[in-house]
Amino acid sequence: MTHRLSTSDKDFAQAFDRLVRGRRESDIEVSRDVTAIIADVKARGDAALADYTARFDDHSLDGNGWSIGKDACAAAYAALSDDLRAALDLAASRIRTYHEAQLPEDRDYTDAAGVRLGARWSAVDAAGLYVPGGRAAYPSSLLMNAIPAKVAGVERLVVVTPTPKGQVNPLVLAAAHLAGVDEIWRIGGAHAVAALAYGTQKIRAVDVITGPGNAWVAEAKRQLYGVVGIDMVAGPSEIVVVADGKNDPEWIAADLLSQSEHDPTSQSILFTDDASFADIVADTVGVQLAALSTRKVATKAWEDNGAIIVVDSLEDAMPLVNRLAAEHLELAVDDPEALFARVRHAGSVFLGRHTPEAVGDYVAGPNHVLPTGRRARFSSGLSVLDFMKRTSFIQLDPDSLAAIGPAAVALAEMEGLPAHAESVRRRLT
Amino acid sequence: MTHRLSTSDKDFAQAFDRLVRGRRESDIEVSRDVTAIIADVKARGDAALADYTARFDDHSLDGNGWSIGKDACAAAYAALSDDLRAALDLAASRIRTYHEAQLPEDRDYTDAAGVRLGARWSAVDAAGLYVPGGRAAYPSSLLMNAIPAKVAGVERLVVVTPTPKGQVNPLVLAAAHLAGVDEIWRIGGAHAVAALAYGTQKIRAVDVITGPGNAWVAEAKRQLYGVVGIDMVAGPSEIVVVADGKNDPEWIAADLLSQSEHDPTSQSILFTDDASFADIVADTVGVQLAALSTRKVATKAWEDNGAIIVVDSLEDAMPLVNRLAAEHLELAVDDPEALFARVRHAGSVFLGRHTPEAVGDYVAGPNHVLPTGRRARFSSGLSVLDFMKRTSFIQLDPDSLAAIGPAAVALAEMEGLPAHAESVRRRLT
Repeated sequence: MTHRLSTSDKDFAQAFDRLVRGRRESDIEVSRDVTAIIADVKARGDAALADYTARFDDHSLDGNGWSIGKDACAAAYAALSDDLRAALDLAASRIRTYHEAQLPEDRDYTDAAGVRLGARWSAVDAAGLYVPGGRAAYPSSLLMNAIPAKVAGVERLVVVTPTPKGQVNPLVLAAAHLAGVDEIWRIGGAHAVAALAYGTQKIRAVDVITGPGNAWVAEAKRQLYGVVGIDMVAGPSEIVVVADGKNDPEWIAADLLSQSEHDPTSQSILFTDDASFADIVADTVGVQLAALSTRKVATKAWEDNGAIIVVDSLEDAMPLVNRLAAEHLELAVDDPEALFARVRHAGSVFLGRHTPEAVGDYVAGPNHVLPTGRRARFSSGLSVLDFMKRTSFIQLDPDSLAAIGPAAVALAEMEGLPAHAESVRRRLT
Repeated sequence: MTHRLSTSDKDFAQAFDRLVRGRRESDIEVSRDVTAIIADVKARGDAALADYTARFDDHSLDGNGWSIGKDACAAAYAALSDDLRAALDLAASRIRTYHEAQLPEDRDYTDAAGVRLGARWSAVDAAGLYVPGGRAAYPSSLLMNAIPAKVAGVERLVVVTPTPKGQVNPLVLAAAHLAGVDEIWRIGGAHAVAALAYGTQKIRAVDVITGPGNAWVAEAKRQLYGVVGIDMVAGPSEIVVVADGKNDPEWIAADLLSQSEHDPTSQSILFTDDASFADIVADTVGVQLAALSTRKVATKAWEDNGAIIVVDSLEDAMPLVNRLAAEHLELAVDDPEALFARVRHAGSVFLGRHTPEAVGDYVAGPNHVLPTGRRARFSSGLSVLDFMKRTSFIQLDPDSLAAIGPAAVALAEMEGLPAHAESVRRRLT
C-alpha cells in the first residue's frame, strides 16, 4: 500500500531512508544478457540484428525491410489531424526556441602574459536516438531528443525503433519528419544500441546515443558508455509535489497520477504541511484512479511506490526533497520562490499552482529527458551540450613561452618527466 | 618497430585503419575483478578497505592511519623550494583564471506566451578525486582536477590516494593545500572508487568522481557511472603532431617523446608533408631517447605505438587527424589557422611552432584532463561543468496555461496518457 509518513512518526528517519534508498539499480542478469548481445552484434553485425529482430519483434528485416524512408515520415505528418499537427508544431517550435538559447559561446582571447587561449564548440558527427516501440513510443520523446541534436548541428541523426510484427507508430514517424531525422532503422533492444555504437555492414556507427528504453536498452547504453557518448543512465520516472492545504486536491491528485501512469515502477510523492489535505488527496487519488484508462499501471505504481508525507512546515520538507533529488518537483504554493531558493537537487522544477508537470512533458520548451534515481545530485536534463564537444586551444609565441615556459620546465622535472621539460626548454631562447 | 606510413603506400588505408582501431578497450578480466571488489566494499565498507589496502599497498589503515590532515599538506607546501612553489602557484593561478571563465550563466525569462522559463546551475555537494600513487602521482593532475571543482563551488572535495608502505608524495600534499582539498584518504585502486561512490562507515559518499588511474580504477569508474557522475573513461595518452619541413626536428622529436614517456601504451604520431624531415625526426627521436632517463618507457611506447606518416600536403592530413580524434594535437606551421579550421575532433590543440604540448600539461590554463582513445569525437576536457548540474524551471499562470495547455492535452491523449491530460485540463478554466 501507499506509504503514509509523518515527520513526527518515531521511525520516520528509517522509513524515509528506505524510500530514498529503495530505487533499483541494474539487474545482474540483465547485465550478463546485454554483454552477450553486444559481443554478438560486434562479431556478426547485420546477421545478429536480423536474428534478434526475428526473435524479439517477429519481424523479418531482410524480408520486410530494414528501414523506414523519409517519404513515409512526411506522409505520416501530412495525415495528422489539424489539431494534432498544430499541437506537435507548437511543441517542436517551443522546444527548438528553448534549446537554441543553450548553444554555448566559443572563447578566444589573449591574456596579460601574451598567451592566446580559447575553446571552440562543435557538434558530434552523428547521433543515434533510441525510440521504444509499443506503449512507450512517444512522439514527444522523439522531439525532445532529436531537436536538441539538430539545434547542436548534428548532420546525421539516426533513429532506431523496434517494429513488432512490422507495425510502425505513425505518430513517431510524423515527429521524425518534423524534427528532421535522417535515418530510421527497424531495430530495438540492446542489439540496436550495440549496432549504433559499433556500426554494422548496413548501419554506420554514431558518436552519441540518447533516448529512453527498457532495462536492456539502459544497460546496453551503460555498458557502451566510453565507446560512444550517452545521455545518461535513466531509471523509472518520479515526481515530488510540495503543496500546502490551499491547493485544489483534484489538481494535486491528478499530478501524482500523471507520473504513476507511466510505469509500475514510477514514483509519486506528496509533501504537505496539512494532514487533512493529505487525507483528502489520498481519497481523491483513489477516486481518480477508478476512472482512469491507465488505472492498472497507475494503481500498481501508486500502491508500490507512492508516498504522502506530512511535515511541520514546507520549509522543513526541503532537506528531504533535496535528498530525493527528484526528476520532477512541483512547488504548489502561492509564492514558490522561497522554497525554490532552498532546492539544491532536482531535474526540473514546476513553480506555483498553475504549472502541472505535464506541460513540461510536451510544450513548455525545456527538455523532458531528466535525471532520475537521485541522479539530479550530479547530472542535468538533456541539452544541446550532450550533442557537442569542446576543443580547447593554446597559442604561444617566443615571448609568452618565455613568460610561462620556465615554470612548466620546473614542474615537469619535479614530476620526473624529462621529455616534457625538454620539449619546452629547447624552445626557450 | 615504429610505424612508418605514407599515403602513397598501396596498403595505406588498411594500415591507417589498424592504427585508428588499435586502441584498447577494457579487459574482461579486469572487469570481473572490479565487479567483485565493488560488491565487497558495498557490503563490508571499511573492513574491506583495510583488507585491500593491507594486501595491495602494504599499509595498515587501522594501525598507521586512514587519512592525512590539512596540517601535513600545509607543511608540505611550506617545505617546497622557492622556485617550485612559484611554479606551482603560477600553474594554480592560471588554471583558476581559465576555469572561472567557464562558469555558466543562469537563465530566467518570460516568453511571448507569458511562460516563465529558465535554468539554474549549481555545484554538486561533494566530489572525489582519485590521485594515483607511485610514479604517476602528479601534483599537476591534482591541480587540474581540484581547482575546477572548487571554482564550481563544491563544498566537500575528497582525495583518495594509495600510500604504498605508508609513503606519501609531499608534492601531492603541497598541491592539495594549494587547491583547497578538504579530506585525503590513504586508499587507492578500485576499492577506493567504490568507497567514494557508496560511502563507508568512515568515508561519506560523494556525487562525482574524477581523476586518472590504472585499468582497475578506470573500470571501477565506468562500472559506477550512474551511481555517481564521472569525468570520463580515460585511456592511454596520445599526441598527434602536424608539422611541415621548416620545423626544428629537435623540437618535434621532443614533443613526440613527451607523450611516449608517460606510459608504454602512450601513442605519438607525426604527420608531415616532407619525407626527408620525417627521416630526420625519426633519427632525432632515437638520439634523444638514448639520453632520456625515462627511455625504457618511452622507447617501448614509441616502438609499439609511435607512427610517422608522410602525406602529400598537410591539408590532406586533416581528415586522417579527425579520424584519430586525438587527445592532443599540435599544428606546427607558420599559419596554423587554416589547418585549425579543418579540425573537427581533438581534445586540445596547440597552435604554431612555439606551443609545445607540455605547456598545456602544467601552466597554460586549460585543463590537461582530456578525452583519449578517439573520444574527442563526443566528449570534452574536464571543466567546471563536470562538477555542476543544471535545474530547469517552468512557471505558468492561468493565462499562459490557457495559451499552451490545450496542446499538451492533445499530445497527452494522443500518447495514451490520460492522467497527464487531466492534470492540465483540470486547471484550464
